[in-house]
Amino acid sequence: MKIIIVGATGTIGKVVTDELKKRHEVISVGSKSGDFQVDITSSTAIQNLFKQTGKFDALISTTGSAFFGPFNELTEEKMNDSIKSKLMGQVNLVLEGRKFINPNGSFTLTSGILSEDPIKMGAALSLVNGAINSFVIGAAVEMENGVRINAVSPGVVENSRDYYGPYFPGHVPVAMDRVVAGYVKSVEGAITGQVIKIY
Amino acid sequence: MKIIIVGATGTIGKVVTDELKKRHEVISVGSKSGDFQVDITSSTAIQNLFKQTGKFDALISTTGSAFFGPFNELTEEKMNDSIKSKLMGQVNLVLEGRKFINPNGSFTLTSGILSEDPIKMGAALSLVNGAINSFVIGAAVEMENGVRINAVSPGVVENSRDYYGPYFPGHVPVAMDRVVAGYVKSVEGAITGQVIKIY
Repeated sequence: MKIIIVGATGTIGKVVTDELKKRHEVISVGSKSGDFQVDITSSTAIQNLFKQTGKFDALISTTGSAFFGPFNELTEEKMNDSIKSKLMGQVNLVLEGRKFINPNGSFTLTSGILSEDPIKMGAALSLVNGAINSFVIGAAVEMENGVRINAVSPGVVENSRDYYGPYFPGHVPVAMDRVVAGYVKSVEGAITGQVIKIY
Repeated sequence: MKIIIVGATGTIGKVVTDELKKRHEVISVGSKSGDFQVDITSSTAIQNLFKQTGKFDALISTTGSAFFGPFNELTEEKMNDSIKSKLMGQVNLVLEGRKFINPNGSFTLTSGILSEDPIKMGAALSLVNGAINSFVIGAAVEMENGVRINAVSPGVVENSRDYYGPYFPGHVPVAMDRVVAGYVKSVEGAITGQVIKIY
């Protein structure tokens, strides 16, 4: 398969790339590195990306950021920025990517545990993750030509220990190979419209 | 209690208003009718609303629209419009309303069954509903002064028979009094951070 991974140089994307490279053609995309660069907050940039990559069989997104901070500092602007990046960035990868995806291809987006298991400072991430989960559920029933779409929703990953220590009290870190397996299941498996929870 | 209902003249809002008026002071807000008018896509308009209503004990939102149409006609613009109305409209009612809500007050937003039980043409609504659900989950843990926040997620309501007939095949319509009970539970009850599913 020809697989595009957007966010290929991030904590998760890097390991997913290493795994899928063993048996597929992987095109790595980052904001500043990788085979191609893209600003996912720009749908024009996303269109240009696909013009360069051409047709593909699977797209994996492990990218996008959202505001992480106290709820009483969460403003409309910070929420809109979060939506523009981790939510609409990933949605636009699908809306533009569907014009380039081969029949029976797949989209795999990334959400996260905060959609249902909240922490302090995480309201914007909760919103974005819940939106991604429900988007793949809603979009899957109308995908054409056998194209599938899923979301991987990881818990706190073991490799990001600094991150979960102070901020995710009591969250049990998830082994990276379990997270990678979620992406492999979505790309190489048969399911669609699923939130693949890794926690 | 002093209760503000935004969307008070809609299918659900009207009945919720009638029920809560029996024992509370209800301020009805609509886009074109009610005690006050507000354009929920404008945070400035929302700020002006609260300046007029003053402090309150509960805010109920039964408002907001989202694109309903074939997935292959769903564009970035239509998704952004959906987010601006049913998602950020309701989020901004909370972000602005928290400056006016009394201690131990409550916010009650409205999502819907499509977050997890999809239909054709519903992808934008699925996304928005999932985002609302996860927002209340994320925001509840940081609400101050005992303020609570929940979402009511109704299935197709019996009163909207024309709507669910062709578009929601096999969905069992929900009795309006059950939907109203969801809002009563959120406002008069004790729970917070909950998605109150009425289906």
